[in-house]
Amino acid sequence: MRPSGRNADNLRDISFEMGYAPHAEGSCLIKCGNTHVLCTATIEDKVPSFLKGKNEGWVTAEYGMLPRSTHSRIDREASRGKQSGRTQEIQRLIGRSLRAVVDLKALGEKQIIIDCDVLRADGGTRTASITGGYLALYQACVNAAKSGRIISMPIKDQVAAISCGLYKGTPVLDLDYIEDSSADADANFIMTAKGNIIEFQGTAEKKPFTQDEFTQMMSLAKQGITELCRLQSAIMKGLL
Amino acid sequence: MRPSGRNADNLRDISFEMGYAPHAEGSCLIKCGNTHVLCTATIEDKVPSFLKGKNEGWVTAEYGMLPRSTHSRIDREASRGKQSGRTQEIQRLIGRSLRAVVDLKALGEKQIIIDCDVLRADGGTRTASITGGYLALYQACVNAAKSGRIISMPIKDQVAAISCGLYKGTPVLDLDYIEDSSADADANFIMTAKGNIIEFQGTAEKKPFTQDEFTQMMSLAKQGITELCRLQSAIMKGLL
Amino acid sequence: MRPSGRNADNLRDISFEMGYAPHAEGSCLIKCGNTHVLCTATIEDKVPSFLKGKNEGWVTAEYGMLPRSTHSRIDREASRGKQSGRTQEIQRLIGRSLRAVVDLKALGEKQIIIDCDVLRADGGTRTASITGGYLALYQACVNAAKSGRIISMPIKDQVAAISCGLYKGTPVLDLDYIEDSSADADANFIMTAKGNIIEFQGTAEKKPFTQDEFTQMMSLAKQGITELCRLQSAIMKGLL
Amino acid sequence: MRPSGRNADNLRDISFEMGYAPHAEGSCLIKCGNTHVLCTATIEDKVPSFLKGKNEGWVTAEYGMLPRSTHSRIDREASRGKQSGRTQEIQRLIGRSLRAVVDLKALGEKQIIIDCDVLRADGGTRTASITGGYLALYQACVNAAKSGRIISMPIKDQVAAISCGLYKGTPVLDLDYIEDSSADADANFIMTAKGNIIEFQGTAEKKPFTQDEFTQMMSLAKQGITELCRLQSAIMKGLL
Amino acid sequence: MRPSGRNADNLRDISFEMGYAPHAEGSCLIKCGNTHVLCTATIEDKVPSFLKGKNEGWVTAEYGMLPRSTHSRIDREASRGKQSGRTQEIQRLIGRSLRAVVDLKALGEKQIIIDCDVLRADGGTRTASITGGYLALYQACVNAAKSGRIISMPIKDQVAAISCGLYKGTPVLDLDYIEDSSADADANFIMTAKGNIIEFQGTAEKKPFTQDEFTQMMSLAKQGITELCRLQSAIMKGLL
Amino acid sequence: MRPSGRNADNLRDISFEMGYAPHAEGSCLIKCGNTHVLCTATIEDKVPSFLKGKNEGWVTAEYGMLPRSTHSRIDREASRGKQSGRTQEIQRLIGRSLRAVVDLKALGEKQIIIDCDVLRADGGTRTASITGGYLALYQACVNAAKSGRIISMPIKDQVAAISCGLYKGTPVLDLDYIEDSSADADANFIMTAKGNIIEFQGTAEKKPFTQDEFTQMMSLAKQGITELCRLQSAIMKGLL
Repeated sequence: MRPSGRNADNLRDISFEMGYAPHAEGSCLIKCGNTHVLCTATIEDKVPSFLKGKNEGWVTAEYGMLPRSTHSRIDREASRGKQSGRTQEIQRLIGRSLRAVVDLKALGEKQIIIDCDVLRADGGTRTASITGGYLALYQACVNAAKSGRIISMPIKDQVAAISCGLYKGTPVLDLDYIEDSSADADANFIMTAKGNIIEFQGTAEKKPFTQDEFTQMMSLAKQGITELCRLQSAIMKGLL
Repeated sequence: MRPSGRNADNLRDISFEMGYAPHAEGSCLIKCGNTHVLCTATIEDKVPSFLKGKNEGWVTAEYGMLPRSTHSRIDREASRGKQSGRTQEIQRLIGRSLRAVVDLKALGEKQIIIDCDVLRADGGTRTASITGGYLALYQACVNAAKSGRIISMPIKDQVAAISCGLYKGTPVLDLDYIEDSSADADANFIMTAKGNIIEFQGTAEKKPFTQDEFTQMMSLAKQGITELCRLQSAIMKGLL
Repeated sequence: MRPSGRNADNLRDISFEMGYAPHAEGSCLIKCGNTHVLCTATIEDKVPSFLKGKNEGWVTAEYGMLPRSTHSRIDREASRGKQSGRTQEIQRLIGRSLRAVVDLKALGEKQIIIDCDVLRADGGTRTASITGGYLALYQACVNAAKSGRIISMPIKDQVAAISCGLYKGTPVLDLDYIEDSSADADANFIMTAKGNIIEFQGTAEKKPFTQDEFTQMMSLAKQGITELCRLQSAIMKGLL
Repeated sequence: MRPSGRNADNLRDISFEMGYAPHAEGSCLIKCGNTHVLCTATIEDKVPSFLKGKNEGWVTAEYGMLPRSTHSRIDREASRGKQSGRTQEIQRLIGRSLRAVVDLKALGEKQIIIDCDVLRADGGTRTASITGGYLALYQACVNAAKSGRIISMPIKDQVAAISCGLYKGTPVLDLDYIEDSSADADANFIMTAKGNIIEFQGTAEKKPFTQDEFTQMMSLAKQGITELCRLQSAIMKGLL
Repeated sequence: MRPSGRNADNLRDISFEMGYAPHAEGSCLIKCGNTHVLCTATIEDKVPSFLKGKNEGWVTAEYGMLPRSTHSRIDREASRGKQSGRTQEIQRLIGRSLRAVVDLKALGEKQIIIDCDVLRADGGTRTASITGGYLALYQACVNAAKSGRIISMPIKDQVAAISCGLYKGTPVLDLDYIEDSSADADANFIMTAKGNIIEFQGTAEKKPFTQDEFTQMMSLAKQGITELCRLQSAIMKGLL
Repeated sequence: MRPSGRNADNLRDISFEMGYAPHAEGSCLIKCGNTHVLCTATIEDKVPSFLKGKNEGWVTAEYGMLPRSTHSRIDREASRGKQSGRTQEIQRLIGRSLRAVVDLKALGEKQIIIDCDVLRADGGTRTASITGGYLALYQACVNAAKSGRIISMPIKDQVAAISCGLYKGTPVLDLDYIEDSSADADANFIMTAKGNIIEFQGTAEKKPFTQDEFTQMMSLAKQGITELCRLQSAIMKGLL
């Protein structure tokens, strides 16, 4: 049924390559099938101006796509002189999702920037950015806590993200590009390891969908995120 | 419980003033309590370049806040030279939500721009923009169909939007600013008159929320949107 | 003679609605016929960098038009990424005109920003912005002086503004859009209640005009500004 | 009285060097005392998009200051990435003033751009730009009419510009920088050779001025412009 | 002597991974030690406006660095809203160097864009971009000629690039970051396989250098480029 | 042979007019045939942020062309809103070249900005900017050292620049525009009075050139720069 031959509840093959960017405090090259995103974490000893003197930290994200990560070349945003609305929407989502699992008081007056750069795009770049960005963030925090750069581990929960959609009327997990471009609906779920919700957003691409369809998508998402968190956990153990 | 004294499932007072912008093809000043948004619809006899020659139309939206619609003055985006990520996120949401109820083929090679300008802000400006923007769009299309500028009425469904949140642990409908700024979670639902889903998005502001809390918020939303659609329908009849 | 049926020396109907923007320190929705401008005054406890430490304040203005305040939709300046030359010219004029009646030393190290947003345009938006902006400024200063936020009332004079033009060869007062778009000349006068001049600017739209024609326009303007100042005074009394 | 020792009605020494920019269709380096402005005229065989197919031409102007034309270095606008409000205000004034003496129908579908670049600034750069820009425009049109590039001479009148001010309470002609920076009022007049008015604009810098003071400034301006037009005429004869 | 232990005339380890960006018409991930640059070639069926209708093609390049390709995070240019002078200088150099070996008439009305994105930076990113960009370009052209998208192979010569410098007084080949940051001089040579010069540029970082030192650097460069061309040739054979 | 009738090793007529910008700390209008560049030096009592507190100064340059310095009008960069890649490349070259002869420690915490504005362009504007910019810099430093604004003369060497090219197969010195636009190769050399190299850059415009051709160009350049330094020295003596 699915162009890839996957079952409705199958994730694509997932892999994480930690330390891909050796200069960064944390980094993870996440591959979800043919979607490859390089996530790096940078710790800065300063905070945005609205937090100065408040004894609190900040986590933010930036997102970009290499011009030929996609089928047709996309214009380089640096050259056009501004980031698209889509880019801004995505990087705000990544930032909010990761910020939600960090104790900003425990972080102290530091800012962590998660850069997510898409090397290859085949659907699901924003959810891969969150799942991989979490590991880059975790690695940076573990090492900073070990070295004393931050006082205690500020990460208080685990987060991963996945897309679901209605493809030819059926709810499916982890859309690739072919599915995504003809899906009836497309939703992204960001949840903790325990299945609680951090963010959700969804769009009816062709026609409104029902609450029942919604519920089925959420169940698939929960199952997928449980699996992603299990994979993350295996990596996280190796970083301690 | 609620600062406004409303019950958990109470909307604020809603009113619609059609024709507030007499030069526009459609216009609606929507007031949701102290949130006032002027929504106008402009029909243009051209489409964005990616649609040229495809015999299809487009619906898009732009959003802005007057500098003193808020407690503290916000910088004028025209003066800063760019729209914030928040603005772009909101206007993309409005555009998607309204586009979803328009038959773009029936519209023909025309673009309709919905401008949503916040005169006064007290929470819920994006959902008010959708609910009021729908009426401006409807008015523009009714008149254009009457006058033959467009061949047939391209609007195929009715849409409205509302926010819900977890306020002091309780799901409540239609957050105002005071509730919004201390809510545990904040979600926006965009649905048709029949209760089908067009868009949803939600964020855990303080801690992840459960699926059960989510379901309660969605029920409140459905109830609120039913009421909003009833109010819209009364106006729509007067436009025919 | 005049499309509106007014006599050459007739102002349009003028009204002022104070407090239209409840969050602002001062606000006035001025209506001059079908030209409606929302003017707000914001007091900030900081000054532009060129005034830091000089124990002096500043008054400045920003101007914008809602996209459908006009017959054809005008591009949103926030979206285009810059303010037009016309916008900058107008906001500089408003700023200079209002600054001229404020004792900046008495204001202390504060900045007052007058935002003028055109909700509906039918000619004369810049002069309406000055006349209405003065009242917003006055309201903000009266209240700030009452509450002790500023030490003494810094407003030392009263100012209003009006346009004149040569329409079909005849000098007329307070041009509306139809007149303005076919006028031979178009001039704006900004004067005090006593008839002294703060700013003037005029342009021959079709052919140069004579000093005599100029003198007649200035007389009309003086008469119109006297009337505007009378109307302002009635409002000002109510604010004390 | 005046820092320069000039009488109230004395212009500074004026000279015109035609052809200073040999590549341009017309060019004039105007020197008004220590204010030196290079004005060039460029004829383009296209018009702005709003005039396409209307069988009419356009005249526009751009203005800039070299970074060290002034006492303190001013930031290069190309480097800052935008033109200041002052620059835009000035170039719009130059454009309107010169456009007013050109028969745009006679010009045909061509655009003439007048570039005014200040090499040295000592007050009065905008009026010098108009007076010198007129000669560059005239030269370009004479030569284009001779060569048949345009069908007939489109210039229908002669224009020059000068500033006046109230300096220590006295009306004076042609302010230099020292006078300008301490003047009570500052006005610019743009008139034809016959003394008719094309543009005027004036500002009370310190306190409102009276109509009588205004009238005295206008008389001085008329006298100065008569003299400037006489000097222009001598040059214009040599260009035929 | 050299921090890396290399001899003065040693290149770093070089490898090329063709096809790294599967969507691109040509792509090469070049690794020069710890400098990794992803080069992609995109063929577009249109040319810049200055070439329209001239029956000629164009080759251009764009360059970027991922934020954490470097020791300290560098600001994302897309977010800052403009490309730095350094970026523009580099992408212009890459474009000129590759354009020099393409017969633009043979290319026909097509544009080839070479995107060079630095994944990891350790000195020599611009020369690696040229050496790797050449292979991406070659792959794209070979395939386009095979498929008939372009009529004949437009590449008329082979090009590679390398840096040289004076490190502690001694000319050395292929500077890495540590050497580069303390070098007395730094030069880049772009040459054909036969040792002819396409571009050269060099800078005295600490003190002027002599013609003799220059000659020694050029000899090292020639030797290095011969080796690079030999490595390229091996890859090129595999692409035919 | 050469369009100008010059011998292969002839410079164009060179003149320097010091003090052309009377407000600047140093200024030189350099004329190399029909290439005229106004170079000014500004001393500022602050340094860029990356040097704050390091007890060191900085020298930087900005470059611009007046719109009609060239045959066809070039767009005003201030109006387009950004500097072209060519402009940035040139101003970075000027900055590096002049910085190389200044002892930045001796300069102390000051920044010197060299503005190079092309009044008339006929090839070689970047090399003229360096040769003339050096004299503006020298004048500013001599006077600042005399007045005690800087402690000791920070200029430690003398620098000039010239272009060479292959014109119809022959190496020639100091290309003018006609030669430049049809040259096979084009190179710029920046050297000290003693013939040591500060910067060099060259491009094969039509086909790669040989090392032998390169050597001949460098010899011509050395000869030309010796002559330029001799001319500079005569001016420099007059400034002491």
